[in-house]
Order: sequence, then C-alpha cells, then structure tokens
Amino acid sequence: MEFTVSQIAAMLGGEVQGDGGEKINMLAKIQDAKKGQIAFLSNPKYEQYIYSTQATAVIVKKDFVARKDVGATLILVDDPYISFTRLLEEYHKMISYQKTGVEQPSFMAENSVVGSNIYRGAFSYIGSKVTIGNNVKIYPHVYVGDNVVIGDNSILHSGVKIYSGTRIGNKCEIHSGTVIGSDGFGFAPQEDGSYKTIPQLGHVILEDNVTIGANTVIDCATMFGDSTIIRAGVKLDNLIQIAHNVEIGKNTVIAAQSGVSGSSKVGENNVIAGQVGIAGHLTIANNSSIGAQSGISKSIKEEGQKWMGNPVFEIKEYFKAYAVFKKLPDINYRLRELEDKLEKPENNSAEKSLSME
Amino acid sequence: MEFTVSQIAAMLGGEVQGDGGEKINMLAKIQDAKKGQIAFLSNPKYEQYIYSTQATAVIVKKDFVARKDVGATLILVDDPYISFTRLLEEYHKMISYQKTGVEQPSFMAENSVVGSNIYRGAFSYIGSKVTIGNNVKIYPHVYVGDNVVIGDNSILHSGVKIYSGTRIGNKCEIHSGTVIGSDGFGFAPQEDGSYKTIPQLGHVILEDNVTIGANTVIDCATMFGDSTIIRAGVKLDNLIQIAHNVEIGKNTVIAAQSGVSGSSKVGENNVIAGQVGIAGHLTIANNSSIGAQSGISKSIKEEGQKWMGNPVFEIKEYFKAYAVFKKLPDINYRLRELEDKLEKPENNSAEKSLSME
Amino acid sequence: MEFTVSQIAAMLGGEVQGDGGEKINMLAKIQDAKKGQIAFLSNPKYEQYIYSTQATAVIVKKDFVARKDVGATLILVDDPYISFTRLLEEYHKMISYQKTGVEQPSFMAENSVVGSNIYRGAFSYIGSKVTIGNNVKIYPHVYVGDNVVIGDNSILHSGVKIYSGTRIGNKCEIHSGTVIGSDGFGFAPQEDGSYKTIPQLGHVILEDNVTIGANTVIDCATMFGDSTIIRAGVKLDNLIQIAHNVEIGKNTVIAAQSGVSGSSKVGENNVIAGQVGIAGHLTIANNSSIGAQSGISKSIKEEGQKWMGNPVFEIKEYFKAYAVFKKLPDINYRLRELEDKLEKPENNSAEKSLSME
Repeated sequence: MEFTVSQIAAMLGGEVQGDGGEKINMLAKIQDAKKGQIAFLSNPKYEQYIYSTQATAVIVKKDFVARKDVGATLILVDDPYISFTRLLEEYHKMISYQKTGVEQPSFMAENSVVGSNIYRGAFSYIGSKVTIGNNVKIYPHVYVGDNVVIGDNSILHSGVKIYSGTRIGNKCEIHSGTVIGSDGFGFAPQEDGSYKTIPQLGHVILEDNVTIGANTVIDCATMFGDSTIIRAGVKLDNLIQIAHNVEIGKNTVIAAQSGVSGSSKVGENNVIAGQVGIAGHLTIANNSSIGAQSGISKSIKEEGQKWMGNPVFEIKEYFKAYAVFKKLPDINYRLRELEDKLEKPENNSAEKSLSME
Repeated sequence: MEFTVSQIAAMLGGEVQGDGGEKINMLAKIQDAKKGQIAFLSNPKYEQYIYSTQATAVIVKKDFVARKDVGATLILVDDPYISFTRLLEEYHKMISYQKTGVEQPSFMAENSVVGSNIYRGAFSYIGSKVTIGNNVKIYPHVYVGDNVVIGDNSILHSGVKIYSGTRIGNKCEIHSGTVIGSDGFGFAPQEDGSYKTIPQLGHVILEDNVTIGANTVIDCATMFGDSTIIRAGVKLDNLIQIAHNVEIGKNTVIAAQSGVSGSSKVGENNVIAGQVGIAGHLTIANNSSIGAQSGISKSIKEEGQKWMGNPVFEIKEYFKAYAVFKKLPDINYRLRELEDKLEKPENNSAEKSLSME
Repeated sequence: MEFTVSQIAAMLGGEVQGDGGEKINMLAKIQDAKKGQIAFLSNPKYEQYIYSTQATAVIVKKDFVARKDVGATLILVDDPYISFTRLLEEYHKMISYQKTGVEQPSFMAENSVVGSNIYRGAFSYIGSKVTIGNNVKIYPHVYVGDNVVIGDNSILHSGVKIYSGTRIGNKCEIHSGTVIGSDGFGFAPQEDGSYKTIPQLGHVILEDNVTIGANTVIDCATMFGDSTIIRAGVKLDNLIQIAHNVEIGKNTVIAAQSGVSGSSKVGENNVIAGQVGIAGHLTIANNSSIGAQSGISKSIKEEGQKWMGNPVFEIKEYFKAYAVFKKLPDINYRLRELEDKLEKPENNSAEKSLSME
C-alpha cells in the first residue's frame, strides 16, 4: 500500500496539519515508527514520543496542543485510537484480500466450480463436484475433498484439510492445520475384545461468520444425512476437539484445547474457557460461562450461570470449597483434636502431637 | 453407485414387496429420503413416516403390516436396523476404496516400491526405500519419509506426516494432520541452564487394525533400535499425545486430547476417557478404565478397576469425596461451631456468625 | 554412512583390538546387532551378550577382560556409554543434514533469498521477500509466508506452517504440523451478541536454539509491531498452545498439551509439565516448576517454587490437602458423630449408622 497523508485524513474525516502530500506505506507504534510510517497518540503518557518520533504522520486528538516542535505531519481527529484501529482494519483487509489468481502447480477436478476473484495457492487441492463462492482464498497445501461447498469471502489458511461433503458458509476463516470432517470416534466392541469401526457417513456444517483457530479438529456426524453443526458467529480457538454430531450454538466462543464429546449440544452465547471437557450427549444452556479446565458430565439447564470444577458446580461455590480444600490438613488435625478431647478429656499435648502424624 | 431394489434385497437376504426394478443411488433417513433413495423402519415410533416418505424403497421387519397405503417398495428382513447398517458399511467401503491411481503432480523416490491397486493423491510425497502394500490409499499432502513400511489396505488421509523408519501394519487408518515418528522430547540439562538435544534415533511401530484420529502425535523412541509401539486393534481419537518409547496394549481405546508420557506402558483393553494425562515410566494394568481429565502419576497394578482424580483413585471413592468437597465451606463452619462449643460452651449466636467469615 | 572400525576408533580416541579394516554402516544394541553394525558394552549385566553378538565391532571399557572368546573387533575407550552417545549424535547429524538440494515441484517467489547448502523438499512453498540462511532444511509441504526470516542451520519438518512476518533464529528445529503466527484469538463483543474480529497484525519471534514439537500452535501478537516471543533455548513439546503476545523466557521447557493464554510472560528456566493451563496477562517467576494439569490464574512472584492444583498452590501442600480430600467421606462422618455426641450425648449406634447416609 502507499497513500498520501491527505488521502488517509480524508478516509478518517480528519484535518491535516503539515504536508499532506507525504507518502505513507506502513503503520507503527509512535515509539518505533520510521519514515514513511503513520502512528497515533491517544494516551497522554506517550506524549513525549511525538517530539522525537521518526513517523511521517501522527494521528492526534483535534484539541492536541504541542508543547515543543513536532516533526511529523499531524492528522487531527475526534478519537485517535478509534481512527488508528480503523486504519488497522483497512490494512488487514488489504493484506488478507490482496492475494488473487492461481499459483501453479495446483489441482482442481474438472467438474468443480469456483466463483470470481479467487486465490488458489500452489499445491492446493480441490476434489470433485466442489462449489466455491466469490472472493474465497485457498492457501497453499489446503485440501478440499469431494462435494464440498464453500460460501463467499471465506479464507482457508495453509494446510487446512476439509473432508468430503463439508459445507462452509460465507465469511468463515479457518487457520492452518485445522481438520474438518474427519471420522467420528465410533467403534462397536466385539466379543473377542476388539472393536469394529462404525462407518461415519455424516457431514459437518459451518454456518456464516465462523472463525476457527489452528490445528483444531471437527469430526463428521455418524449417520448418513446427519451433521455436526457450528452455528453462525461461533469462534473456536486452537487445538479444540469437536466430536461427531455436536452442535455449537450461535455466537458461542470456546478457548484453546477444550473438547466437546459426541452428540452434545452447546447453547448460544456460551463463553467456554481453555482446556474444558464436555462429556457426550449433554445439553448446555444458553449464556453459560465455563471456567478453565472444568469437566462437564451432566447437562446444564439453567441459563446464564458460571461453572467450575470436575464435575462443575457454581463457580463461586467452587472457589469457596477450594479455599477450604487448601486447609484440609489443618481441618483434619482439628477434627482429631476434638475427637480426642471428647473421648479422653484428660488428653495431653504430647499425645496430640503424635496424633498429628 | 446404482443398484436395483432386487439387487439390494438379494444382498440382504430379504424379500421384495413392490417393484424390484427401481433404481437406488443413495441411503437416507426415512423422514428425509427422496426418490432414488433407500431408508429403513425399525423403531415403531417412526411408523408414521413410512406413509409419507418419498423413498423409493424402505427396509422393514418381515412381519410389518401397513395400516395405510405405502408408496415405497418394501424389502422385508429379520432386523431392518442390522440390514441398514450392513448397507451403510458396504456404501462406506465403496466410497473409501473407490479412489485408485496416481494423481499428478506427486512425488515418489525411484527406489520405493508400491503394491497393486494404490491411490496416490496429488502432492503426496514418498521418500526413499519405502515399501507400501496393496490397496493402500495415500491422500493428497501425505508425507512418507525414508525407509517406511506400510501394510495392505491401510489409509492415510490428507496431510498425514510419517517420519522416516516408521512401520505401519495392515488395515490401519490415520486421519488428517496426524504426525507419526516426530522426535521424542528429550533434552539433557547443561550447567549453564540450557538444554542439549538428545538425538532421537528410534522408531514407531503400528500393528494391524490401528485407527488414529486427526492431529494426533506419536513420537519415536529415543534409542537406536527401540520403538514406540501401538499394538493391534488400538483406537486413538483426535489430538492425542503419545510420547517416546510408550507402548499401548492391544485393543485399548483412548479418547481425544489425552496424553501418555515417555516410556509408559498402557495395558490391553483399557478404556481411557478424554483429556487424561499419564506420567512417564508407568505401567497401567489391563482392562483399566480411566475417567475424563484424570491424572495418573503412579503405576496401576490391579486389573479391571475404574479410576478418577489427579492423582487418580477408585472412581466411586472419588465421587464420594467430591460430594463432600462441594460442602467444604459448611464442614469448615460446623467444625468451628464444635470448637467454639467445646472451648466456650456459653458461646452465643452473634459470635457464631462472626466466626463464619 | 560407511566407516572402518579404525576410523571410528580414531574419532573416539580409542584403541582397536582386532581387525580395524572391517566396515561399519549402522549402530545397534549389543543384543540385536548384526554384521556391519557397531554396539557398546557398559553395564556389566549385559556382558553375556558380547560373547554371542553378531556385531562387527563393540565399544568396551579399556580395562575390559574377556572371559570367553569374543568374535567382534573391540574398540577400547574410557567410557563406552559416552563414546556410543557421541557416535549416535554424529549419526543423527549425518542423517539430519544429509538432505540438500531442491526437489521438484517446489515453489519459491522470485524475490526471496536463500543461503547455501539448502534442502527444499518437493511441494514446499516459500512466499515473497523471504530470507533464509545457510544449511536450512525445508521439508516437503512446509509453508513459509511472505516476509519471513529464517536463520542458519534451522530445520522445518514436513507440513510446518509459518505465517507471514515470522522471524526464526539459528539452529531452531520445528516438527511436523506445527503452526507459527496464526491469528490470536481476539474478538470484540457487539451489542447483538455477535463478535467482531480484532485484526491480528503482530508477529512471532523465535530466538536461537528453540525446539518445537509436532502440531503445536504459536499465535501472532495482536498489535502492529508487537511480537509473541519464544526466547533462546526454549523447548516446547507437542500439541502446545501459545497465545498472542505471550513471552516464554530463556531455556524454559514445556511438556505436551499445555497452554499459555494471551499476554502472559513465563520466566526463564521454568519446567512446566503436561496439560498445564496458564491464564492470560500473568507473570510467572524464573525457575518455577509447575505440576501436571495445574491451572494458573494468578501471577507467580516467588522464584524457584513448585506448584500444583487448579488454581495452583505449593506442591507439597497440594499433596497433603489431596491426601485428606481422599478421606473426606470419613471426615464428614466423624464430624456428624461429634455433632451427635454433643447435641445428644445419649446417641446410640443404630442412629449413628443412619446418620452415615
């Protein structure tokens, strides 16, 4: 990218103080910025840097009054932080969407259809009867199995693996190494102690605006015609396990390394911390909040509660109980003392110290 | 696939009632089925759907008596559920094994040998001196290092990475993103606080009928000539960690996100739930059952027991203790009350409420 | 490799007893060794094997006196175990560094620069404006995004994914499936319950001598110009989660399946066991040791302590408390007994047994 200070000011609805014709090609923090870069000053603690910065331009609040000479051109706006964030978003969009075209070698079956303005990286693989919308980015080493459907504006980062039959909505983003549609973990025990694989014939559906981190796994549903479903707006972090036939409700957020077992239905707007485990065939109410490393082994029916423990109970109760847990050796000792007192009131301190062991 | 109703009935040993010449190209649930599809009716709760289904054929119990008109051709069998499951299995087999041949570009060193009826997907890589059996499926982006041996009928899904020297048996299936044979985590502490890498020179052996989920990791053994061993019939779920020199006994099943540390030997027919951690250099007896999120820090010698906690103890005892854990603030309060009563029998309720804080 | 016994003896500073001209092409354990292989005898328990081994040469202590005929040529050294370890290291180095050259097809943007003695495997991808040092090994299916810098002597195993802007030092080794630089998990909640993605514009820095296991994920920093930093000498195991803006101090070691949440700073020389979770925005003091499956929700300020639990406290205290936890049903019962005794001193045993329930 390269813009003039005036072009950026116009985009932000700000006023230029200085040379609007100077060129900007990068964003930076005010203390690190170099020539050709734009920074911002919002927190007064950082004011000192505006007098020494090498930045070509700095976004400042419109009532900013310099107490010394400022070398940079200023852009005066209502809220410098919000304006800078907007620039970051625009910059991110430019970066994300700048890639288009097809790098070679890449592989696409002849009977698959892609929309306009697509990026297909080198070594990407698109199987048979696949349908891909407009503005989709398929990075290098992505695998898209047969009969997959991908909506508009979705991004699959390098090395994502999509098994056959998966359906991905619009504006989804999936990070590197994530696997979608792998077999559910289903095995029927046999009389000789071995297991027979239950064929996994269902699929995975990702609705719109779903974001998935790196190296996460979402298994397909077991039965033909069934789906593991990730509802619109769900955000999954890295290294998460979503088993067969699970449903994650709208706008639920799950942090890294958590796992949801087969056939469980997680409600909407849940906030699930890291390393949480949810057992199979459960229902978790809407607006639940689950503390880190919790284990859930029963359905949660009350909406809007916070939970902790393995198995979970109400989070404040957990911390109260845990505070006493830390003192259990003392409680044990005091209990013995009481017992001694009641059994043998003549008990002496020498005996007490023995009973501690 | 496309079969007539009569061909399917013959395969299932069932009797056709209606037009046996109709074509079937897909399986479906009775409530969702469309023309050209076959469904089944087993649970009487679903009987209503047989009168409205669009399915071309429905598998029913041989004593089924329709109470209204049925549009679909019927196949009468002893157990419709088992018959449908058999169809699913056949269908799955057809899907799994339909891929054969070599897609381009793909890479195979000249001194490697593959059996007959192989699928090698585009961008798959086979190193030097590799031996691969018959009917093996190597999906796109699979990496097979040097000197690897793979038995007959095994499937490596897209993006599987097999380090040099690994041996994989017959009828193994490995899902996307799984890594086999990466370096064990071995570092020798040095006097300056840094660590020196201990060369990891052993290998990994997967016996027959091993199934491994997606994004799991199995490290190689440390010493030259040693192996990390996954015995016949073992089923590992997604995102599991198997460290160097571990051995997992025959027909053991491990759920997602569990980890086994270096040199531990897990017995046969274990059932290990999700997010379990097993420390290093332990032995776990046969037929053990480990509850979710448990931590195992000592060997388990008794066979056939169930365990829970961190560290684990007998699972029923864990739940009994945990039930009291939840009431610990109350126990703490009651203990203080008793102490107060014994120390100062004249204690009044105002003082008691203070002592709660 | 192929060396004569004399060449190996010279390298080890040992003395040959027997035919120094024999050829060695492999290392092995004394009980398994075959012709053409070299083994060692250190532990007297294994002495029996030296009389029956098929090894062409055996490394022994210089004061070794055979009690029977020995077929193998001997190399006499001060410490056979150390000598053999040195051979293993040399062998490992030869294996690791034997690959050079460029396999086809592979992809590298024209404006990227690589040093001398490079290996670039088939299907590896190197983006735009990348700088790679000397002796670097880029295995098949590795993805290196734009503007990445990689130092000398680093190894990226098959399927590693490096996002744009990452900086990797010298002598780093990264195992298969690991993802570096994926988006941090940052979402701003909106009034309608949905989340807006916060653009993640920072990078990841790996200093020198960092080793990372398989299928681990390290997210980039959020802000433009900021970095997630892995300091020199850090060793990360498999399936680890390192969130945005985290810093891991020099020579810290983290075992498999642990996770560090956003913006936390882990000190130097920490030893963190498996499946540990560290919450966000914390500081962990140097030389801390964290027990398996622990949860850390507050900063640790004291250096050199050991911790356990969720949340953690001092590890010995944890085990003392846990010992009492296992007896909680008994404590509960004894407390009731005392209460009964004080309330109704005439209590009889029949009533007591009822109160157990």
